[in-house]
Amino acid sequence: MKTEDLPGIRTFRLELSFDGTDYHGWQRQANGITVQEVLEEKLRHLFNNDSIRVQGSSRTDSGVHALGMAASFQAPPSPYIPDWKLKKALNRLLPPSIKIREAAVAEDGFNARFSAHSKAYVYVINTGDLNPFTCRWSWNVSDIVNPDGMAEALKYVEGTHDFSTFTVELDPSKDHVRTIYRAEIRRFGPLLCLHIMGDGFLYKMVRSIVGAVAEVGRGNLSPDAISRMLEAKRRSAAKDTAPALGLFLLKVFYDDSWKCHELSAPPFWMM
Amino acid sequence: MKTEDLPGIRTFRLELSFDGTDYHGWQRQANGITVQEVLEEKLRHLFNNDSIRVQGSSRTDSGVHALGMAASFQAPPSPYIPDWKLKKALNRLLPPSIKIREAAVAEDGFNARFSAHSKAYVYVINTGDLNPFTCRWSWNVSDIVNPDGMAEALKYVEGTHDFSTFTVELDPSKDHVRTIYRAEIRRFGPLLCLHIMGDGFLYKMVRSIVGAVAEVGRGNLSPDAISRMLEAKRRSAAKDTAPALGLFLLKVFYDDSWKCHELSAPPFWMM
Repeated sequence: MKTEDLPGIRTFRLELSFDGTDYHGWQRQANGITVQEVLEEKLRHLFNNDSIRVQGSSRTDSGVHALGMAASFQAPPSPYIPDWKLKKALNRLLPPSIKIREAAVAEDGFNARFSAHSKAYVYVINTGDLNPFTCRWSWNVSDIVNPDGMAEALKYVEGTHDFSTFTVELDPSKDHVRTIYRAEIRRFGPLLCLHIMGDGFLYKMVRSIVGAVAEVGRGNLSPDAISRMLEAKRRSAAKDTAPALGLFLLKVFYDDSWKCHELSAPPFWMM
Repeated sequence: MKTEDLPGIRTFRLELSFDGTDYHGWQRQANGITVQEVLEEKLRHLFNNDSIRVQGSSRTDSGVHALGMAASFQAPPSPYIPDWKLKKALNRLLPPSIKIREAAVAEDGFNARFSAHSKAYVYVINTGDLNPFTCRWSWNVSDIVNPDGMAEALKYVEGTHDFSTFTVELDPSKDHVRTIYRAEIRRFGPLLCLHIMGDGFLYKMVRSIVGAVAEVGRGNLSPDAISRMLEAKRRSAAKDTAPALGLFLLKVFYDDSWKCHELSAPPFWMM
């Protein structure tokens, strides 16, 4: 009998946000505290069940943030709380840096990673002065001279491409083709928010794209250089990868609702 | 001969922002690190002068933030940097939580505290869910039912009043009359930003006013109760003081320019 067939076992779906500054990414590891580890500890406590294991929609890197990370887990009913109180009870236990936005019973077979249709990321670049209130979650680039060129450059990553240039872990046995539905910039004061939405993302793909697009913004590359970099299909054609602190996993979609997803005007992180 | 009459001594004016979360307020003290202490350490290094002492416009409390705190100090020329590089050089030395927005030579006799004409504060209340990206600098009040009543209540503090009810350090030898020029709310999504601008503020005055106005928002007081609290002129008539983490010193004015100061639409902290 498989765990998921045990009586009373249900699958839960979570949507959560976290400030990644002080975490070694999502996934459990030996050398530092991770979001998965903190979340599992609280769930195991709430469900009085040491075997709960959470599946994240993505393995975000050290320092990356999330506004709508998705996760799933299976568990028999909690002896302490009814399902409808799960969000509130978890938020009471979690530190301020991790908050549950939604918690619900999902359909059988739901898996936050494998059921995902598409994802939206946003990368925040601060073109203004260093600011104590944005420096934890934006990359300061003070020498942007061509923001319109950045918007133009992003258009070249839209569509279906082999993104081998824009990843750091090339595995020849794997497929590096992904489809980017939209790649656009929204501005708010000195902040440039680079929105990238697609059916899937290679390791460090968004940060590699942002690193190249920032060079366009700095006037060191023309916008169509991005197209040539894509065509090269090799890592050596890429520029430096943008740092983790500016990246947010904004939303994970489990159906076609990405099609009507409004690219949130910044500051989306307050919503 | 007074220090300020020494040859080559000039007065400098600074405008700075800081995230107060990890500081024990502005003013130097024995039991914890303060903004003044960190700033003086960097200035003494840059000017190679151990006697530099910074005068702040206000003595912000532990945990309170600033976007436009003002400060002044006197010093002979730095042996390392010209005046015009002061802002950049300081920002290179300061931690991310403290940033200089302006640094300039001021007129003789300028004193950030005693020359101040008026000040603008803003207090941020988050009426929505706890959020990892706003929780460091907003007070979460999830049961606000009457935000319009809060705006109405704030109108009662505008004008010239004895604010004895809204301070925690009553000294009978001192004057508790202050003039509030404007007290208004700006909304951004789930955030209510309470702007209060006036010629001066008593100790914990803004947080005391916000504590009472929040009770109006929660439906526990009618808006005009604020008027009766003011008239009582005693601390026992007040409500709980709002916590420090939601308060920002927004701007200090040294002339009549407050009259044309636009109440910044939130999120002012990104500007």
